[in-house]
Amino acid sequence: MNIVAISGSLRKDSFNTMLLRSLSELAPAGVDITIADISALPLYDQDAEAAFPAAAQALKDAIAAADGVIIATPEYNRSIPGVLKNAIDWVSRPYGQNSFAGKPVLTMGVSVGKLGTALAQAHLKEIMVYLDTRVVGQPELYLGPAHELFDASGNLTEESTKDLLVKALGVLAERIA
Amino acid sequence: MNIVAISGSLRKDSFNTMLLRSLSELAPAGVDITIADISALPLYDQDAEAAFPAAAQALKDAIAAADGVIIATPEYNRSIPGVLKNAIDWVSRPYGQNSFAGKPVLTMGVSVGKLGTALAQAHLKEIMVYLDTRVVGQPELYLGPAHELFDASGNLTEESTKDLLVKALGVLAERIA
Amino acid sequence: MNIVAISGSLRKDSFNTMLLRSLSELAPAGVDITIADISALPLYDQDAEAAFPAAAQALKDAIAAADGVIIATPEYNRSIPGVLKNAIDWVSRPYGQNSFAGKPVLTMGVSVGKLGTALAQAHLKEIMVYLDTRVVGQPELYLGPAHELFDASGNLTEESTKDLLVKALGVLAERIA
Amino acid sequence: MNIVAISGSLRKDSFNTMLLRSLSELAPAGVDITIADISALPLYDQDAEAAFPAAAQALKDAIAAADGVIIATPEYNRSIPGVLKNAIDWVSRPYGQNSFAGKPVLTMGVSVGKLGTALAQAHLKEIMVYLDTRVVGQPELYLGPAHELFDASGNLTEESTKDLLVKALGVLAERIA
Repeated sequence: MNIVAISGSLRKDSFNTMLLRSLSELAPAGVDITIADISALPLYDQDAEAAFPAAAQALKDAIAAADGVIIATPEYNRSIPGVLKNAIDWVSRPYGQNSFAGKPVLTMGVSVGKLGTALAQAHLKEIMVYLDTRVVGQPELYLGPAHELFDASGNLTEESTKDLLVKALGVLAERIA
Repeated sequence: MNIVAISGSLRKDSFNTMLLRSLSELAPAGVDITIADISALPLYDQDAEAAFPAAAQALKDAIAAADGVIIATPEYNRSIPGVLKNAIDWVSRPYGQNSFAGKPVLTMGVSVGKLGTALAQAHLKEIMVYLDTRVVGQPELYLGPAHELFDASGNLTEESTKDLLVKALGVLAERIA
Repeated sequence: MNIVAISGSLRKDSFNTMLLRSLSELAPAGVDITIADISALPLYDQDAEAAFPAAAQALKDAIAAADGVIIATPEYNRSIPGVLKNAIDWVSRPYGQNSFAGKPVLTMGVSVGKLGTALAQAHLKEIMVYLDTRVVGQPELYLGPAHELFDASGNLTEESTKDLLVKALGVLAERIA
Repeated sequence: MNIVAISGSLRKDSFNTMLLRSLSELAPAGVDITIADISALPLYDQDAEAAFPAAAQALKDAIAAADGVIIATPEYNRSIPGVLKNAIDWVSRPYGQNSFAGKPVLTMGVSVGKLGTALAQAHLKEIMVYLDTRVVGQPELYLGPAHELFDASGNLTEESTKDLLVKALGVLAERIA
């Protein structure tokens, strides 16, 4: 199984990107997770669709070819980052060519505060239901506090979080199979 | 009164940008509406805050100096455009320097379909409540269908929409006064 | 296939209840739709779980035995009716015995105004994703205006609405199969 | 100042009801907080409006006479309890006689889990913005874990929570003044 993962944060030491890097070793055998880059996308502009940007097309193609999608999002202002929404908007376009359609999707997020990006994921799941994906409802992955989950090299070391992720990846794999 | 308006769409013939251009003639006497440009903002990246981008700082300064804010948003995938959220994320940063705080805010949106961006505005209002603004709850401005509101030159001509906007601008002005 | 349908409105001439009554003739062959009654439920109170109310247990049992669930909701104050949420709360209890888990769910709603209960269904879908159901994302069923859909006997007569419902029932049946 | 408070939970030992009972001693001088009872309301039914139920009318009258409103809500299935929404639905009716209009509103919630009812309050704030209230955006009151906040007699004893509530009540009082 070929899974594409997107991090909603662009910063170099992002906890959510760290989280995605930690998933490969927790995934069931035969599940391959590739992290997509969304930092090179232009701001979405319908006028730019005529010459669809290469970075946007590449992301669309990667999602279209995937068996499933994982999105790890920080929470900015109680919603998802504009950066992440911008990537989703490109993948959903042009009209009638939504590359997310039919894909099983797992959302997660890690935060320093106690909410674990629950409010961001609420918006994200609404968007993903609209985009005709199969959103995993349980388990929910509201993770943190971020600084207690990783070691100095950015490896996920907190055991109960690892257990929860193993369970969630298993559910995602079942939805794909 | 000095009001800054933001359109959530970058396309040249955007109905929401048209809508904002039509507001000045409907506003009460003494209310000045300036449309801000969000097309030149980079994708938000916390690492970039160290050298805060000039376009982001200019938008922050404009909002900070405003007596009130108007946001006209299209609906992309049942939420606000990534482009608009990206602008909001910049204005809310750096930590502790949210330039929206305390401002009266009026949201609106026009669409070709019948929802009039109601779902996008639901997310937008949640974000704006979090950002400690004073969000106008009534009247709601779920406008459209877009192609019946404007003439060929992009002037708002539909009378009941104009009446609703006059009422909403009056409420915004009262909140500012 | 055995489907249980819930109307979020208690009023006798509810458009949403009418809508549910019209579904049987639009459903694929072999799909049986039964409308559950939620009017006799007490207000949910955790203290009352010790002697779980018979009406609540009956609703739980009906959902548990169903292959799929349909919910038709009016929109009250931009969310679902308290009456409907009360029914959902009972079905989700006691702790660990959520009778919705794993069920394919189709939501719909009809309104006099133009939103077609889109904002109510946004809340409803969030709740249903949390309850570990399989929510149908497309097609969306934001129906109306109510008074143009039905004849004087309460039969659904508007053709494009019927077509949309046929399509949605087909998607639900596929999810069950 | 006369404030009416509503608890979204009916159970006898509700943490949210305890929370409301603790507020009076934290409120600024001259602020009076009365807890309304929502347990005797019938399930909302538009047909019942013709003979508006006495319990619903009493709640409407109390809200209408209040200078401000406080709502403490548990989170049921990632939204507000049906019981609470039912009370809100009654207060908003009959059509055109929404008794919440114009009132400053403070929402809060306490939970055993770490989210502190953040997702329930997201729905609640959307509803309250629609009902034309003035919703306090900051500080947010996502409180808990519940069992660490109160002593055996149900008195709020956790100091940082008390400080946060004092601050929030001050903001509410300012909005009323």
